[in-house]
Amino acid sequence: MSDRTSDGDIFRVALAGHRWQGVGVLAYKEEGSAPFRAITRQVLFQRPELGCELRYFEMAPGGYSTLERHEHVHAVMILRGSGHCLVGQSVREVKERDLVYIPPLTWHQFRATRGEPLGFLCMVNAERDRPQLPTEAEIETMKRESASVAAFLDGRLAEMA
Amino acid sequence: MSDRTSDGDIFRVALAGHRWQGVGVLAYKEEGSAPFRAITRQVLFQRPELGCELRYFEMAPGGYSTLERHEHVHAVMILRGSGHCLVGQSVREVKERDLVYIPPLTWHQFRATRGEPLGFLCMVNAERDRPQLPTEAEIETMKRESASVAAFLDGRLAEMA
Repeated sequence: MSDRTSDGDIFRVALAGHRWQGVGVLAYKEEGSAPFRAITRQVLFQRPELGCELRYFEMAPGGYSTLERHEHVHAVMILRGSGHCLVGQSVREVKERDLVYIPPLTWHQFRATRGEPLGFLCMVNAERDRPQLPTEAEIETMKRESASVAAFLDGRLAEMA
Repeated sequence: MSDRTSDGDIFRVALAGHRWQGVGVLAYKEEGSAPFRAITRQVLFQRPELGCELRYFEMAPGGYSTLERHEHVHAVMILRGSGHCLVGQSVREVKERDLVYIPPLTWHQFRATRGEPLGFLCMVNAERDRPQLPTEAEIETMKRESASVAAFLDGRLAEMA
């Protein structure tokens, strides 16, 4: 073990409320850079020796991540609560420990639709491309193609929950 | 989204007992290849687009992973139960959601010492070197240097729990 690796680097204890000792609760993204609501980010593992990072995102009830797509993929495990997610043209309920894979260039979004927080682990390559945001016309096309996608994007699943 | 990506690839529902739809419960390692006890492996994410894999390992009460070291690192989150782990010369209790980082070439082992299962997520590079096992002399040195390491390696923490 390297002499530069301290015990505090090795062990980070879980705290109440899905926080961790020595892990900061960060803004999800820069404010105004993209649409999102009531969502935080914690970076659990980000190491030069690892090809991926592990992050934890959590939405308060009614919160949502950005609707976006990118070449890089996500490997997600729900860690807290429940809600819905959109992946391509599929809208699904998700709950603790469910797994979600986000393929390349696939529109995706998570929403805390069920009156409780929705928190998930997200594994992602350390080197990755920038997310793309949909145009208004692309959003309209997505909604037209599927009633459940329209309900999801319009935030109507939360109302129905 | 690629036409070859089915819904079953994207969503994998969590089942009772920390299992997942479409994810097989595998042997931890080849029997006889190394010391271990009462531990299973599930591969949650293993994708060519990802630089890492995410696995879930679970030990029954009294079970343990192999004491080993390697150049590649592990990024661990405890997902179920509690127990102890050894990292280098540190023995620590671990419980749900605690984070453990295993540095390069550092002896490590997990043990379900507390009369309940111990399950953890482990993120690891897809390309990695083979684990090294300790010699008897190395194990004796580790025990001599620390009473808590000796108690851990001898399985005496379980008895005290």
